[in-house]
Amino acid sequence: GGGGRGWGGGSLPVEGCLVLCLTRMDRILEVDAANLLLRAEPGVVTAAIAEAAEAVGLFYPPDPGSMRVSTIGGNVAENSGGLRGLKYGVTRDYVMGLEVVLASGEILFTGNKCVKDVAGYTLRDLFVGSEGVVTQVLLRLIPKPSSRRTLLATYASMEAAAETVSAIVAARIIPCTLEFLDAVTLNCVEDFAKVGLPRDAAAVLLMETDGHPAAVAEEAEMMADLARRHGATSVRLAATAEEAAGLMTARRAAFSALARVAPTTILEDVTVPRSELARMVAFIGGTAVRHNLKIGTFGHMGDGNLHPTFLTDERNLAEMERVEMAMREIFDHAVSLGGTITGEHGVGVAKREYLRSMLPGVNLEVMRRMKRALDPLGILNPGKIFEL
Amino acid sequence: GGGGRGWGGGSLPVEGCLVLCLTRMDRILEVDAANLLLRAEPGVVTAAIAEAAEAVGLFYPPDPGSMRVSTIGGNVAENSGGLRGLKYGVTRDYVMGLEVVLASGEILFTGNKCVKDVAGYTLRDLFVGSEGVVTQVLLRLIPKPSSRRTLLATYASMEAAAETVSAIVAARIIPCTLEFLDAVTLNCVEDFAKVGLPRDAAAVLLMETDGHPAAVAEEAEMMADLARRHGATSVRLAATAEEAAGLMTARRAAFSALARVAPTTILEDVTVPRSELARMVAFIGGTAVRHNLKIGTFGHMGDGNLHPTFLTDERNLAEMERVEMAMREIFDHAVSLGGTITGEHGVGVAKREYLRSMLPGVNLEVMRRMKRALDPLGILNPGKIFEL
Repeated sequence: GGGGRGWGGGSLPVEGCLVLCLTRMDRILEVDAANLLLRAEPGVVTAAIAEAAEAVGLFYPPDPGSMRVSTIGGNVAENSGGLRGLKYGVTRDYVMGLEVVLASGEILFTGNKCVKDVAGYTLRDLFVGSEGVVTQVLLRLIPKPSSRRTLLATYASMEAAAETVSAIVAARIIPCTLEFLDAVTLNCVEDFAKVGLPRDAAAVLLMETDGHPAAVAEEAEMMADLARRHGATSVRLAATAEEAAGLMTARRAAFSALARVAPTTILEDVTVPRSELARMVAFIGGTAVRHNLKIGTFGHMGDGNLHPTFLTDERNLAEMERVEMAMREIFDHAVSLGGTITGEHGVGVAKREYLRSMLPGVNLEVMRRMKRALDPLGILNPGKIFEL
Repeated sequence: GGGGRGWGGGSLPVEGCLVLCLTRMDRILEVDAANLLLRAEPGVVTAAIAEAAEAVGLFYPPDPGSMRVSTIGGNVAENSGGLRGLKYGVTRDYVMGLEVVLASGEILFTGNKCVKDVAGYTLRDLFVGSEGVVTQVLLRLIPKPSSRRTLLATYASMEAAAETVSAIVAARIIPCTLEFLDAVTLNCVEDFAKVGLPRDAAAVLLMETDGHPAAVAEEAEMMADLARRHGATSVRLAATAEEAAGLMTARRAAFSALARVAPTTILEDVTVPRSELARMVAFIGGTAVRHNLKIGTFGHMGDGNLHPTFLTDERNLAEMERVEMAMREIFDHAVSLGGTITGEHGVGVAKREYLRSMLPGVNLEVMRRMKRALDPLGILNPGKIFEL
């Protein structure tokens, strides 16, 4: 990532390489409200992009959990997701254009301000998520939704929470946020943030709908009703914007809260098709029991993106071996359900080995050919995603 | 295109090549309502995709003008647009996965059913719009909007119509459709379809908003009001679904209507950033006068995609020379305004020469490198977009 962070290690230097630090390229170059666009340098913090859009009544939807520290350059490099993937998609869906520096030193601007453009191949999407460096980003904005409602439903079982999500989609409602926390996570969050989460619940579902006030009111009502009909033990509709913000902040604190309780915290990032979510969550629970590990799971239930988080201690080598085994089983199971080993954090160095077992040889070979065609000497972010 | 049609000639065989005809690969393989997805073979007609989605309360938004004859394989090959680009984007925005046959004969499936996936480079977008062949398409669907309203505004000047569009976007309304017809086109359409278009107008604007009934009612009211305040000489709100459908059908008939009045009809496809639209339309009008040509212009005002249509006679060589000159001037002007020589029809063979003057050398060189990396002998759809 542009800020030198990132879960997959995409921004970690390998031995003997140069580090390009772009954090001071942090200007918003243009807010073009007539064309619903914003142009920025890569070092701008994601939250600052969102605020610049809001200042003119517009909206930049991607909101990675780390948006107060992550940079837009890093978001583009990793194709970051966030809490609104189901309704609004991910970073890729908002990139209209990119300036990149090629291995030759040449500067390439791909994309433009046109909503439609089919003049030649689209190169833009090859760079988004490539764990490379961009020097300028042209982003698409949308009108800011005029209203939002936030709900919290609690459950005695994870299955009931997953069934609620299925029922919501079956009712043709696409909320902007459908987040869940399991029992381990919600207790850590409550210790940390004290927002009144029910400590005896097996899962909580945090739901948010946005848009026209009439649509939002109806959808919030329907979602509350569907939650109750699918086994929610309580449903709380945030009465004020402050209460809603408190709930969302609690969710955003999930990782920090988990990280406090064990010497080593390993955050994972598997994603499955939404319909396989209950199965995947159950498998993660079983894996924790089988290997005698503590795993707190939270994530984006609406888009199938789960963050099983290992609470462990890297000094305990026997336990770390079991963590490795459990992780491998979780990745394999996600792939067998049609899923992926990383939904929004990237491959970096952490998942290079796993990528080989997930993707067919032909896919990897085509990716390698693309990399070689653009960077024949492998000088750009060497050692990431795969060896050349 | 998969059906052997297409404006840019992307599906025209060059001498000595083989034609791959996939029109009989026309099955919808899966409608996965739980994951909001549809999987189909390339020969399925676009309208059949839309109907299969509607049958389960879902919506496939891209609606190229030719959707009753175009195939989804052709839509993917050309990254087809349509009348809903402003709000809903283009074909690319709905492609979740693709099966393609590589030059080596190997089969590659890129993408999957996950909303989020960052495991390696995204290859999918390199194939969308590549004028190549796909053998399977996995498409994203969204809930069907529960309501829609259609309006027709007439204007004494094109500038007033363009100002209305700007005012609508400035009011943070994103209608699904904002189409316009100029005086030449609307008179041809009225001759052809007889839907009551005002023959003395300089332009008509056809607007449609969709979504929640309350939002739609408000937006339709606001759009009518903005049209009046920006010089509309009349605003007609379709009272029934039939009346609305009639208006949309008239718009879809624009090309057929124009094609009747001259021996040769050449449809063009420039696109500019929305804010440059009035300037571009005025330039096209001036070009017609300067070169003593008849040009009817219509298109997607909401997304800046214009279809200036030359009404000419290819047997008149002197006139054809003037058409060539006018076309070159129109392309150059679009590019100088930050636009593109093709918004949704593709390069094919028709615009190969123009592509070179639009794109910087480095962009073309990177595209060529991608092509060579995947098809070193140039055996896939030879001679299209550029020479290798």
